[in-house]
Amino acid sequence: MSEFNTISRPSQRPDLLNNTTHFPELPKSGPLTEYRRRATIDWRKVKLAFNDEASLELQQKVWNFFQNNPLFARPSQTLSLDESRRLATKRMYAIKEENIFGIDALLERPDFMGFFSHLLMAYDPSFSIKFSLGFGMFPSVIQALDVGRLSHLVEQNQRGEILGSFGLTEISHGTNAKGMRTTATYDVKSKEYILHTPDFEAAKCWIGNLGKTCTHMVCYAQLYTADGKHHGLNAFVVPIRDPKTLNAYPGVIVGDLGEKAGLQGLDNGFVMFRNYRISRDYLLARTGDVNEEGVFVSPYKDESKRFGASLGALSGGRVGICGIANMYLMKAISIAIRYSASRKQFGPDDKSEEWPVLEYQSQQYRLYPHLANAFTIKMFTLWFAKIYGEIFLKTLTGERVEHVGMEIHALSSAAKAICTWAARDGIQESREACGGHGFLKLSTLGDLRGDNDPNCTYEGENNVLIQQTSNWLLNVRSSGYENFKVASPLGSAQFLKDYANHNNFRASWKTPSEATDINVIMEALNWLVAYLLDTTAQKVANLKKQGKSSFTARNESQSFYARTLSMTYGERVIMFAAMKFLRYLEDGPEKVALTRLVSLFGANVVIKHVGVFYQGGYFAKTANALELLQQGVLDLLPLITVDSVALIDAIAPPDFVLNSPLGMSDGEVYKHMESAILQAPEALERPKWWREVVYRDYVKPKL
Amino acid sequence: MSEFNTISRPSQRPDLLNNTTHFPELPKSGPLTEYRRRATIDWRKVKLAFNDEASLELQQKVWNFFQNNPLFARPSQTLSLDESRRLATKRMYAIKEENIFGIDALLERPDFMGFFSHLLMAYDPSFSIKFSLGFGMFPSVIQALDVGRLSHLVEQNQRGEILGSFGLTEISHGTNAKGMRTTATYDVKSKEYILHTPDFEAAKCWIGNLGKTCTHMVCYAQLYTADGKHHGLNAFVVPIRDPKTLNAYPGVIVGDLGEKAGLQGLDNGFVMFRNYRISRDYLLARTGDVNEEGVFVSPYKDESKRFGASLGALSGGRVGICGIANMYLMKAISIAIRYSASRKQFGPDDKSEEWPVLEYQSQQYRLYPHLANAFTIKMFTLWFAKIYGEIFLKTLTGERVEHVGMEIHALSSAAKAICTWAARDGIQESREACGGHGFLKLSTLGDLRGDNDPNCTYEGENNVLIQQTSNWLLNVRSSGYENFKVASPLGSAQFLKDYANHNNFRASWKTPSEATDINVIMEALNWLVAYLLDTTAQKVANLKKQGKSSFTARNESQSFYARTLSMTYGERVIMFAAMKFLRYLEDGPEKVALTRLVSLFGANVVIKHVGVFYQGGYFAKTANALELLQQGVLDLLPLITVDSVALIDAIAPPDFVLNSPLGMSDGEVYKHMESAILQAPEALERPKWWREVVYRDYVKPKL
Repeated sequence: MSEFNTISRPSQRPDLLNNTTHFPELPKSGPLTEYRRRATIDWRKVKLAFNDEASLELQQKVWNFFQNNPLFARPSQTLSLDESRRLATKRMYAIKEENIFGIDALLERPDFMGFFSHLLMAYDPSFSIKFSLGFGMFPSVIQALDVGRLSHLVEQNQRGEILGSFGLTEISHGTNAKGMRTTATYDVKSKEYILHTPDFEAAKCWIGNLGKTCTHMVCYAQLYTADGKHHGLNAFVVPIRDPKTLNAYPGVIVGDLGEKAGLQGLDNGFVMFRNYRISRDYLLARTGDVNEEGVFVSPYKDESKRFGASLGALSGGRVGICGIANMYLMKAISIAIRYSASRKQFGPDDKSEEWPVLEYQSQQYRLYPHLANAFTIKMFTLWFAKIYGEIFLKTLTGERVEHVGMEIHALSSAAKAICTWAARDGIQESREACGGHGFLKLSTLGDLRGDNDPNCTYEGENNVLIQQTSNWLLNVRSSGYENFKVASPLGSAQFLKDYANHNNFRASWKTPSEATDINVIMEALNWLVAYLLDTTAQKVANLKKQGKSSFTARNESQSFYARTLSMTYGERVIMFAAMKFLRYLEDGPEKVALTRLVSLFGANVVIKHVGVFYQGGYFAKTANALELLQQGVLDLLPLITVDSVALIDAIAPPDFVLNSPLGMSDGEVYKHMESAILQAPEALERPKWWREVVYRDYVKPKL
Repeated sequence: MSEFNTISRPSQRPDLLNNTTHFPELPKSGPLTEYRRRATIDWRKVKLAFNDEASLELQQKVWNFFQNNPLFARPSQTLSLDESRRLATKRMYAIKEENIFGIDALLERPDFMGFFSHLLMAYDPSFSIKFSLGFGMFPSVIQALDVGRLSHLVEQNQRGEILGSFGLTEISHGTNAKGMRTTATYDVKSKEYILHTPDFEAAKCWIGNLGKTCTHMVCYAQLYTADGKHHGLNAFVVPIRDPKTLNAYPGVIVGDLGEKAGLQGLDNGFVMFRNYRISRDYLLARTGDVNEEGVFVSPYKDESKRFGASLGALSGGRVGICGIANMYLMKAISIAIRYSASRKQFGPDDKSEEWPVLEYQSQQYRLYPHLANAFTIKMFTLWFAKIYGEIFLKTLTGERVEHVGMEIHALSSAAKAICTWAARDGIQESREACGGHGFLKLSTLGDLRGDNDPNCTYEGENNVLIQQTSNWLLNVRSSGYENFKVASPLGSAQFLKDYANHNNFRASWKTPSEATDINVIMEALNWLVAYLLDTTAQKVANLKKQGKSSFTARNESQSFYARTLSMTYGERVIMFAAMKFLRYLEDGPEKVALTRLVSLFGANVVIKHVGVFYQGGYFAKTANALELLQQGVLDLLPLITVDSVALIDAIAPPDFVLNSPLGMSDGEVYKHMESAILQAPEALERPKWWREVVYRDYVKPKL
């Protein structure tokens, strides 16, 4: 069980299944009842496949806290920007003081690090991000990079006396961190650093908590010593606001970036320093320090390695984002499936009752690929969180994790792009699949879209980020395919050591069901990645042969090559982890139902890249390979339909968390809509400005 | 020139080119200057390809009005729901009284019907939709369907005394209009109709202007006569609110649907009638009437034809939406291209200056497909607006337009889906291509996304709507391919009369440039549609052979078949219209640049459906067909880059309309951002609730 902490086998925990706190009874009547009756699966067993007792209990603790704390009551209309920040801030302090998942709990279950935060985000992303940044990331970065001078700040932070933030990005430089222009110059006389921002383009920006609330900030700046020598980007802790007044200190121009397309409660800010002085102690000196006499000393010789080490503390971000995006997707698809099972429209003839729209093939094939993404990625994130948790513990004890670190970097870069785009596309499809009603604010689908949106661009803009993955794959390959054995301790790319086998493989499926067999699909994905790795390497080589520089060759081999390589590698890893997950499950209809979703996930990956399969000759021996695969997909749709509502019951959060009249567990879409719409503020009132409609003295007719 | 009113040939109008009102000078310095210097094209000539003098003048009039009317000043922060409705309402009355494009202008240039409304929408969609619904659609529907009893309402409306709305959809029935349950029962004694809504599920909903402001509504209800006989859905004009007090009349429960994911200023409402009585005169009786004695009389025998005729007045909606979506896409891609040309990041080495991100292949291939969509669809909408305008005039004079009507219906159904999804995807890619800054509200990209969003689901949810297209194609085909000649007077499907030629055609391109030749691509698209029509028909036939009903056969032939057929037919029509457009242009670099965009559009259609091409054997004679096509696409990217900024200069609205610091014509992204961010309300202030951060008496530490 070592690869999946949270998988529970129902036969080993029959007591758990009957625990009505974790598995509350579902509504006995209403539009979803018929689907629940027809289901071949027990939704509780599916839920137990994704949860152990500890995760169920943690969930319950968090849900209880939300339900019993007046700060977490849902406002009856959208708050103003200022009020949304205010509420998020108060909620942040409330969860902080509640101390539900503290450091002891973390050390016991490091795989819950992300899980806990996703539970908070499922209810309200803004406050959760504020909490993670201010009381999680801020002290962790200090602990990881400090040399024992700043532990008092960590203690103050843990007591809630100071609030942190983390700043790297500048207005005109994000991806290219080396181009950043905020400077920190050591002044020998005063033993201080002088922070300076040359202009607005060099303002640190996008920093959560900085806009209105934080008192301190971890800030990266170009370090100069008095001799004028430059020592690269270094991290400092910078006091920003007086914790007693919340006024910014002189020399600090700090402000708010304003409204966004989502995450309104999070106060993203910017800061410019005007020759602002901070104590020598405030350099986070683990990777290099300036001694009192002004001489820079570092255990690292290579500056880029030193910078890498100082950023290493951040690699968990992308792992976490995969889970966050998956949570958003799960919420959206839960709403869309329940809505589609409740909403009826048309039928075989005018006489008979109308069909639920979920019964139509076109509705199924627009939603189930996203349902399959949601579940398959969920399996992947459990595996990924477990692995990352273990590595996190190792780094705490100072263990070297070089190869794993590289693999995690490549893997998380591709996975973050795939998971956030899967959420983006699945939320949008869910929104459209609910028709006009999905456009109502109360559906929450618009907010899910807006809140997931920044996941696609922060912690590495997806399109740029995935270049890290192809670079790694090409690098390992350049010293021979056998190197993938060592370079991929997590197994994400180990299969490439048998490059030739995969590359020579050809599709030989003979039936639709064979074509959608997960092992058969995995063979296809193995071939796909192997083929793309080889053709991308050739493309780069050809460009270089034409006399192009490495930079140009890399640039000109992205579209159709390196980019697709990164994506398919990531898609394959997700399938790979999901197949591991399935192997741990007990046999039974639940395993069958989940396997179908993984099949559909994989089949859609093949269909998406079908051009490459034809191009590379993978279908050469099977003329009707694509027809068979398509038929296999069509055959899956009605089978998934039977269990779709029960699958959602297994993963949807409680109604008060999901919070959408379109997706409640009783399926009473219209009753909940009626109730929400009629009770909305001023819904039935004449507008206060009615006179401006009746008497229009602000316009004069023009003839 | 009959197919494109607005194309102007620069050589014939050199005077126009030098008109600095229509072609203001561009900034002479700043980040975009270098791109403008390198461009092979004169942006003014490109602009003139899409405009004649009349359209330029109409634009100028509208822009001037916006700039000189205080109601149209941009608010400095997002308004509350109520304030956004208030402002949109006042703006609506302001544009109404200005009477810029009245009925005389419309009769002269019916192709400007949509164009004028797109100009308004480019500035503020909500007020523009309110205006179109309240003072455009409402009186037109009355004029089209009334029998001379309600012209006083049209006059009152034109004087601004009453405001209209239009309601068909109910809470639980949208697509399936026949399932609607609002009733109108004729009472012989009082000579009135009694309108009744059985429950909230039957409430009319989503009706723009109904939420807060309209006084009257065109409302569809199931008509019953006193003898209990049912006469189908009929349209009534229903008084909703007293024009003097804006209070709803007794018996009318009318309210607001609340916040949405966009178009906040538009007051979408719902209404329920409680045995509400309206005069007999208020039935729109053109397609059927109840005489005073309570007998239903109609010139139509077939009820569904009668219903079709009563809805016929609405077919312009989808034509208009194509243009609206294109306008949103143009705005988004303008912002993304200018931003990418201004934003610099990385470079060949640490020494040299950083490159604009637009120079990277990955950025080019994420943006140019949307740039190509924007321009190609623009060409299509000009053709479509012209055709629709002519048909509109014919229907006014009572001319029969049967075949054209069917073709327009099929064509507009597919085109609406393609154009709105193109906008959806292009806006999202533009938002991500601007990195984090694209997530700022001030970028406007989030609002563009939210405002375009309902286009995908209203006037027919796209996925359901496109089934109309495949149904039409399959229908015409069922009586023989030769019938496409008669059935397709507009030419959208005439090519199918030569089915066999297209179906036997095979790719034979030999070079990348040949593969991306627009004529070669058109051959491929001809084959694609022909092949899919045939395989879809076979699929349906096979399902029927298995004993399935027509309903089931149609349902089960959607994915991979009918759906793809509809989409490819629509994509081909867009290419078809664009090629007509290109033929009208004068030779020169502008024509070359625009042709490249149409090439890229078509090449991407082929690449998207590459599985079908392989499956159907289209590449059988050319083993490396896909490689050549991909290389052709890659070869286009740098050529488009050279002219990209000039292309945007030709189509971007003025800065004050585009209104995004990321996309201003001077390219000074960071200066505009600095200015906007620092001047935002409360940007630098300590929050008023700072005490709640410093003293946290609302939380108690839990140990």
